[in-house]
Amino acid sequence: MSIEVLGFAAQSAKSPLAPFKFERRNPREDDVVIQIEYCGVCHSDLHQARDDWGFSSYPVVPGHEIVGRVTSIGSNVTKYKVGDLVGIGCLVDSCRTCSACHTGLEQYCEEGHTQTYGSLDRHDHRPTYGGYSQTIICSEDFVLKIPENLDTKAVAPILCAGITTWSPLRHWNVSKGSKVAVVGLGGLGHMAIKLANALGAEVTLFTRSASKEQDARELGAHHVILSTDEAQMKSAANQFDLIVDTVPYDHDLKTYIPTLALNGTIVLVGYLGDLNANSIPMIMGRKAIAGSVIGGIKETQELLDFCGEHNIVSDVEMIDMQNINEAFERMLKSDVKYRFVIDMQSLAKEA
Amino acid sequence: MSIEVLGFAAQSAKSPLAPFKFERRNPREDDVVIQIEYCGVCHSDLHQARDDWGFSSYPVVPGHEIVGRVTSIGSNVTKYKVGDLVGIGCLVDSCRTCSACHTGLEQYCEEGHTQTYGSLDRHDHRPTYGGYSQTIICSEDFVLKIPENLDTKAVAPILCAGITTWSPLRHWNVSKGSKVAVVGLGGLGHMAIKLANALGAEVTLFTRSASKEQDARELGAHHVILSTDEAQMKSAANQFDLIVDTVPYDHDLKTYIPTLALNGTIVLVGYLGDLNANSIPMIMGRKAIAGSVIGGIKETQELLDFCGEHNIVSDVEMIDMQNINEAFERMLKSDVKYRFVIDMQSLAKEA
Repeated sequence: MSIEVLGFAAQSAKSPLAPFKFERRNPREDDVVIQIEYCGVCHSDLHQARDDWGFSSYPVVPGHEIVGRVTSIGSNVTKYKVGDLVGIGCLVDSCRTCSACHTGLEQYCEEGHTQTYGSLDRHDHRPTYGGYSQTIICSEDFVLKIPENLDTKAVAPILCAGITTWSPLRHWNVSKGSKVAVVGLGGLGHMAIKLANALGAEVTLFTRSASKEQDARELGAHHVILSTDEAQMKSAANQFDLIVDTVPYDHDLKTYIPTLALNGTIVLVGYLGDLNANSIPMIMGRKAIAGSVIGGIKETQELLDFCGEHNIVSDVEMIDMQNINEAFERMLKSDVKYRFVIDMQSLAKEA
Repeated sequence: MSIEVLGFAAQSAKSPLAPFKFERRNPREDDVVIQIEYCGVCHSDLHQARDDWGFSSYPVVPGHEIVGRVTSIGSNVTKYKVGDLVGIGCLVDSCRTCSACHTGLEQYCEEGHTQTYGSLDRHDHRPTYGGYSQTIICSEDFVLKIPENLDTKAVAPILCAGITTWSPLRHWNVSKGSKVAVVGLGGLGHMAIKLANALGAEVTLFTRSASKEQDARELGAHHVILSTDEAQMKSAANQFDLIVDTVPYDHDLKTYIPTLALNGTIVLVGYLGDLNANSIPMIMGRKAIAGSVIGGIKETQELLDFCGEHNIVSDVEMIDMQNINEAFERMLKSDVKYRFVIDMQSLAKEA
């Protein structure tokens, strides 16, 4: 027995996303059944739908920025009740026993975490399907509580774009007086600015486009540096405790490393590939390049609570499910401020 | 007025080191005059004598692993008296006022520290000359106290090879139970093994040469991994809290990064150049690449005291000053276990 769900899927790397009916498991004792209201559109949705990373398994139902309401719960569920506003981010399970899981870092689970889509469930070994769908079912331990005071549709991107930048800001102890720079002003970058600002940091945006200055300042950046301007870059030398680098494609880290302060770190959260960097300024200032991926359940909840207190949400552009392929194309041109979110009621037209 | 000193210098990138008479300043009020007994031979001596890094200014009198006795002191000197056994490492001055200097990190002085040789003195702007000489004069604030219980001639390399590995071991909090790996078994590598072991870490040597296993174990390595053996490298995945990478030439970091544990760091202490690394394992395990250069005065004294308590010195091969050019050639072939030290009494023959 299982539950039939309508969603949108890519059936191959070359096919556009289209309506797709599939089955989800019947809820297990610790499961929460969620009717999805909104789902954010992440760059990795596009990459996995198109098999850009070479490990996609079709059909792919993307979506890991999921917000909805609980419609039923398993017999052992204690944290949630029917009607609760909840979220699911990038991971829906992990081994739960390794030292990473024990410290709330399920994203670094030694066995590998179970992704919200594109993984196999650890128990029944069926593929996981994401949030471009009506309903999702997940262990309560991987479900987040969403503050009711926020604009619900604009919360969804916090579950990936938000936590991906929050986790390094917290790991590297950003707080009042920290000097933080952000590279790239997209879905991740705009959240990094908001969150670093709310943590009390002095925030700088590095951008290649002078036209982004006004927007960056409105989001919370105190300074904007044109990374193509050598003089501006030189005058920024030895400043930043942390640079959150959200750029997803190959780019030159040599430009940014000299702007790190002594003991500073540039953390890559979006780029998978070979590094374009040189050791000399790193050695001469004990500077580091690090990586970070999404965040754990505990810190995601912490972030959502923080956003509730500080009234922080993502800047979003709402779309219907039927417009997802067009949205993908616009994302490739960075033509979105700053995250598309799908109104999942639009799926009703397909039913 | 000044003091005439005999040393050995390179007069150009192409000329061998040869006897050279030069003048040192008369001691200032805070200066200590030191009769040099021993001087270690560092790879950077060779590189600067031959202008391998392109910034040498001739004549070059190398040497920054200096041990000797105080023969006179300036009127304001309080820390040392005539007869004290003392050392000088890689730096002889800094601005003393920036935040790095204030925290005992003179090696990262915002104005740049004054190197023991190849710099200009901050006050009289005369070139600094190193320890391949009879006498050196230095502010007491940059002079180290050498424990009298150690084998004096084998202490010298602690002042560069030792502190260069100690500083990152301490900065990254290596202690009992830490898992530390060392890449490269030369002057730096052999000190890294001894020091990490004495700090209580479980120590692994990565080497490309199986013949080094016995030596590494005698120095204090608990494990030896052949880095050219894929199976051995795979089984070392996700293990090390810190890797101290002492290799001075371009090499593949992609081999080592996957062996870092979650939150682990590979710290480069010997290589100046472009990085051969990939972000994927860094992002998937919050791993970092960092750099570190020598160490500050306070931590060098801490190291010397630690070595005194734990009876740690370098493994050295003694040479006369007259054999320095041959020693350079042998260093290029890694034909030394593990550091040449010049017995400065040999200079008397030239006088």
